[in-house]
Amino acid sequence: MQTASRFGALTIAEVRLTPILIADPPLLNTQGVHQPYTPRLIIEVVTGDGTTGVGETYGDTRYLELARPLAAALPGHGVSDLNGLFTLAERVCGDPAEVSDSVDVGGLRGVQTADKLRLSIISGFEVACLDALGKVQGLPVHALLGGKVRDAVDYSAYLFYRLAAHPDGQDESDDWGAALDPAGVVAQARRFADTYGFGSFKLKGGVFPPDEEIAAVRALAEAFPGQPLRLDPNGAWSVETSLYVARELGDVLEYLEDPASTTERMAEVAAGTEVPLATNMCVTTFPEIEEAFTRKAVQVVLSDHHYWGGLRNTRELAAICRTFGVGLSMHSNTHLGISLAAMTHVAATVPNLDYACDSHYPWQTEDVITRRHEFTDGRLTVSDLPGLGVALDQDALKALHQRWVDDDGSMRDRDDAAAMRKADPDWKTPSVPRW
Amino acid sequence: MQTASRFGALTIAEVRLTPILIADPPLLNTQGVHQPYTPRLIIEVVTGDGTTGVGETYGDTRYLELARPLAAALPGHGVSDLNGLFTLAERVCGDPAEVSDSVDVGGLRGVQTADKLRLSIISGFEVACLDALGKVQGLPVHALLGGKVRDAVDYSAYLFYRLAAHPDGQDESDDWGAALDPAGVVAQARRFADTYGFGSFKLKGGVFPPDEEIAAVRALAEAFPGQPLRLDPNGAWSVETSLYVARELGDVLEYLEDPASTTERMAEVAAGTEVPLATNMCVTTFPEIEEAFTRKAVQVVLSDHHYWGGLRNTRELAAICRTFGVGLSMHSNTHLGISLAAMTHVAATVPNLDYACDSHYPWQTEDVITRRHEFTDGRLTVSDLPGLGVALDQDALKALHQRWVDDDGSMRDRDDAAAMRKADPDWKTPSVPRW
Repeated sequence: MQTASRFGALTIAEVRLTPILIADPPLLNTQGVHQPYTPRLIIEVVTGDGTTGVGETYGDTRYLELARPLAAALPGHGVSDLNGLFTLAERVCGDPAEVSDSVDVGGLRGVQTADKLRLSIISGFEVACLDALGKVQGLPVHALLGGKVRDAVDYSAYLFYRLAAHPDGQDESDDWGAALDPAGVVAQARRFADTYGFGSFKLKGGVFPPDEEIAAVRALAEAFPGQPLRLDPNGAWSVETSLYVARELGDVLEYLEDPASTTERMAEVAAGTEVPLATNMCVTTFPEIEEAFTRKAVQVVLSDHHYWGGLRNTRELAAICRTFGVGLSMHSNTHLGISLAAMTHVAATVPNLDYACDSHYPWQTEDVITRRHEFTDGRLTVSDLPGLGVALDQDALKALHQRWVDDDGSMRDRDDAAAMRKADPDWKTPSVPRW
Repeated sequence: MQTASRFGALTIAEVRLTPILIADPPLLNTQGVHQPYTPRLIIEVVTGDGTTGVGETYGDTRYLELARPLAAALPGHGVSDLNGLFTLAERVCGDPAEVSDSVDVGGLRGVQTADKLRLSIISGFEVACLDALGKVQGLPVHALLGGKVRDAVDYSAYLFYRLAAHPDGQDESDDWGAALDPAGVVAQARRFADTYGFGSFKLKGGVFPPDEEIAAVRALAEAFPGQPLRLDPNGAWSVETSLYVARELGDVLEYLEDPASTTERMAEVAAGTEVPLATNMCVTTFPEIEEAFTRKAVQVVLSDHHYWGGLRNTRELAAICRTFGVGLSMHSNTHLGISLAAMTHVAATVPNLDYACDSHYPWQTEDVITRRHEFTDGRLTVSDLPGLGVALDQDALKALHQRWVDDDGSMRDRDDAAAMRKADPDWKTPSVPRW
């Protein structure tokens, strides 16, 4: 902590990056299956008085490569200088044009660009800065965002087709068992509802032919009459298939999420159905908004502070949606309790958060915070403690980092198709549209 | 201060409202002439530890009527609960539908509604809360908005056709003299440039027939070659006249501001010229954005935190403009140093503030702050002091309030047409389009 003494309480003295691998169950999606372990990056921002703020974001190699120069450049900067994070990241993280060759196109997150990766990194740093700032000033993060407009945030049950165990046998085992048909999906939903009180359900689709997934949603509608349902095939369907599913399930769906990939296909689907279309694939950055909104391609945007560059950008996205009459919900990728706290704080401040938020959290058995979040009646109470209101469990962090250190490299970059090939050596990432 | 002791440093203990009348020169616009005195409202928010934050907004009777119940309801609320200001104001300031009968349609501000009045009131309270919060926490207001991205903010010279003295002889006299022709406008611009260093010029038009105003802008272009020029007739022109002026001045105008009233007319003008159109009349609230942006009716929005509901809403407006490729500048109405400080703080945090900001400030000889702002090279340095960085001059405030108390009612509501009738008893507010 020698560096810390040179700076004041509002100045960043030190930044620590800790890549970790966390256990993840064998959840299925259109690309493949979740690997036994998935990478996350834990960011600690320490101010001059020794206050530590924590953030969390994606931990794959290409994210780490962007995070390291930003972490190195931050000491000496004000912890409240959040606008400055963007200009600093632009300066030190390299020219997006230069690194864009190494960037995937496609995947569950839509088209990936260097800009998107950089925003995901900034997001983790922004949350850590807000946590530190709140702790220094005795204010919860929601107050730094203008104050909560609700005391609790609704979450939705995130249902997955899944295997009982990982194909390669490597496993932090759980007792959920397989869910590969309507009965399995309903049983999973029942356990979610009983354990956490969730009142709405999202099924990750794109795994089985559409009629099987229609049957699963129908079964959910019968088991939970009147409760909001969502289906998300991650863009796996053609326009025609999307419209077919919309017709079949229009009476029970709250919204249909990314039935087809690309704004153009979504606009075609939207023109042919009254079922609202949601997205976290064709609109994941500000430059993608104008075309999608002007063409009425989406009726709901699934915000995600990791994608959009932080909690303050998420609030700006919310303002844009409010202004253009587009609904707002919240997306989730595999994450731990730091990100769930951040999601809950920002969700609490947005007046037009029109739907229950997604969260993978119940699937995560490991965490880096000392006290896990607990859903009650499908909701999380918004913390009024200074900062995010979570404390880092250094022992857990160390153990999960050691797993990352010990890994032979096979898990450090999430690859759902590679995991699927453990079960099916001929598996290839399906081309889109798959059906 | 007995109330203060009951609350902590982050809780509002007391709110003081002080309506004042401030001297205003006889500036001309399409509605008439500025009255000798114009009303403003000074808002003091005192927290539990005795910290006082200051805000400033419109002071006309109908604004005061909305401000009083909000001031009465605030003690006990958190000074950081800025999102809560909106819900509280909705609750205590009355149903807009009920008071909308008393609201003017038209005027310099576009269509006025109860919602717009309420946002102007919220704005003054928000700034006062931010000033108090910053003082309590040792942070400048710009840091509460995420941090400045520039150290100084550019302002533009705001030129007016004007009389030498007020028609009724009532006067806090100044030595500017009349400006009623191109030579007078150029002389005024020269003094502005020499005294304050402004490098761009805006002429308030709509006063004389368009050819006379074209001649004045031409004279400015000759006197200040290559420097950005703007002309703003406050919607006084027809579509045809607007296009005529755009053709005549297209080579020297940075933008043409509200040549025609209504989004529909602006869209027609925009379709016929390459000159960017700016507005602070047809887009002054979030619900007006979608139509105007979709129809490409405006290329620049003139933000104004008094209109849009505060500094944080102004940043949301900026995000929307950035996302839709629309330029951003800043509007000004008659204001004092508190509002100028607020304008400068928010302007410093917005990356896409593409133009120099307007300010009436040089026309105001009176103020309620102890040390007036000074423009250097047309710019104001952004304060890094806690809060806004201004201190209230209680003696000046008292004197200007006494003027309001002593007023017979004729100045408590700004009425440029009434002032004009002192010179021309037959004067009526011109119907639009005037030319």
